[in-house]
Amino acid sequence: MKKIVLIGAGNVAYHLFAAFEKTKNIKVIQMYNRGADKLKYFENKTQTISDFDLLKPADAYIVAVSDRATRELISHIGDRDVLVAHTSGSVPMLNSAKRNGVFYPLQTFSKQIEVNFSEIPVCIEAETPKDLEILRILGESISEKVYPISSEQRKKLHLAAVFACNFTNHLYRIAEKICEQNDVPFAVLHALIKETARKIEMDSPKNTQTGPAVRRDQSTIALHLEQLESPDLKEIYTLLTRSIQEEND
Amino acid sequence: MKKIVLIGAGNVAYHLFAAFEKTKNIKVIQMYNRGADKLKYFENKTQTISDFDLLKPADAYIVAVSDRATRELISHIGDRDVLVAHTSGSVPMLNSAKRNGVFYPLQTFSKQIEVNFSEIPVCIEAETPKDLEILRILGESISEKVYPISSEQRKKLHLAAVFACNFTNHLYRIAEKICEQNDVPFAVLHALIKETARKIEMDSPKNTQTGPAVRRDQSTIALHLEQLESPDLKEIYTLLTRSIQEEND
Repeated sequence: MKKIVLIGAGNVAYHLFAAFEKTKNIKVIQMYNRGADKLKYFENKTQTISDFDLLKPADAYIVAVSDRATRELISHIGDRDVLVAHTSGSVPMLNSAKRNGVFYPLQTFSKQIEVNFSEIPVCIEAETPKDLEILRILGESISEKVYPISSEQRKKLHLAAVFACNFTNHLYRIAEKICEQNDVPFAVLHALIKETARKIEMDSPKNTQTGPAVRRDQSTIALHLEQLESPDLKEIYTLLTRSIQEEND
Repeated sequence: MKKIVLIGAGNVAYHLFAAFEKTKNIKVIQMYNRGADKLKYFENKTQTISDFDLLKPADAYIVAVSDRATRELISHIGDRDVLVAHTSGSVPMLNSAKRNGVFYPLQTFSKQIEVNFSEIPVCIEAETPKDLEILRILGESISEKVYPISSEQRKKLHLAAVFACNFTNHLYRIAEKICEQNDVPFAVLHALIKETARKIEMDSPKNTQTGPAVRRDQSTIALHLEQLESPDLKEIYTLLTRSIQEEND
C-alpha cells in the first residue's frame, strides 16, 4: 500500500483523485489546497488541509497545480524526506525538494467530462531509480501506459502536443465556422474527424495523407483559395498546403 | 427492393458494395469498371461488366470513380431513364444524364481498413423530390446519417474537410516528427489526439481550446518557437497561434 498526498484541487487533481480512489494499493491520505472552497468536494472522502504544516508523511506528494504555481509551491515543501512529483508538462523536473520527480498524465482534462484513466499515458521522471519505481507503481495502478520521459523529451512532447491538439482543435474551429456560414451542420464532419484521428493508431500520418495538397491538385487548391474570404485563412491554407507538399517531395 | 449498378471498382465502390450487400432492400445488380482486373474481386458476388452497352435498367447508377473521371464517364451513360448519382465531394451535381444526383459518403476510405458505414454521413442531392427520395432510401439503408446538401454547400463542406482532416493529419505528422527527433514514442500522444477529436462531439471547438496560444502565455510561446528549427514550422506555429488569439479576442 502506497500513501500519497495530492496538492491542488483543480481538474488534474480531481481526476487523479478519482482514479486513485479506484485502486486497491494506493491511498490518497490528504488533499492540500490553499483555498478551502475547492476542497469541499473532497471533505468526506479524505482529509483536506490548507496549511503546509499539517502535511503528513507519505510515499509521494503529487503536486497538481497550475504551471505557474508549481515552482513556488514546491519550494514551500522544504526538506521533508518525501518524493515530490509535479504533474506539469511544461515545467522541468525541479530540484528544490529533497527528492524530486514528475508524474505527468498527458491528457486535456475538463471537470465535466469523465475520463478513462487507464488509456491516459503517464510520463514519469525521477532523480533515482528507487523514486522512479515509486512513480511507476503509482502510474501503473491507474494507467496501462507509463513512459519514463526526461525533462528535455517532455519539453518536446509538449511542443508536439500543441501541434497535434491545440492547433488541430483550431482547425476544427475553422471548419466549424465554414459550416456555420453555409448552413451545413458541423456534425456532418464528425465521422471524418474521428476517423482521421483513429487512423494514426494504425499507420503513420505520413502514409495516410489525402486531399488536394498531396495530390497536387492545383485546380482544387485554386478553387479553395478563391472561396476563402479571410486573408488569415488563405494564408493558413497556403502554408499548410506547401508544408504537406514539401513533406511529400 | 431497389436495384442499383455500381460504376467504378476503387475504394469507395468497394466499401459501398460491402455496405449494400448487408442490406435487405438494396441489390447491386451489376458492377461496371473499364479495366477488368479490378473487377475480379466482385466476379462471383455480382455481374461484372466493362462495356457500357451491357448496363441493365436499375433504380440508380452510383458512379464511384475519381473526381477527374466522373464527368466524362457520366457523359457516356447517355439518355437512359435512370438516376445517375456520383459520389464525389468536389464535383457539383452534373446535368449530362437524363436524371442527375449526388450520393456522397463523407469519409476517407482505404481498402485495407474496414469501416462502419452506419456512422458515415451520406450527403445527397437530386434534381427532383422523387429522385432525392430514392437516394434517401439508398442512404438510410446503409447509414444512420443522411443529409440533403446542395452542390454549393458540398463545395464548402469539402473545403471545411481539408482543414478538419487533411491539414489536421499534417499537424499529426509534424507532431510525429518532433517525437521521432527526440526518441519519444508518438504513441504517447495518441490518447490526447483521440480525446481532442472526441470532444467536438460534446462542445464547440471554440469553447474547448486550451494551450499557450489561447492562454496568451507569451513565455511558453517564445520557448516553443526557439525549439523549432525549421522556418516553415516556426511560420505555422506563429500563424496558428495568432489565428487562435484572434478567434478568442
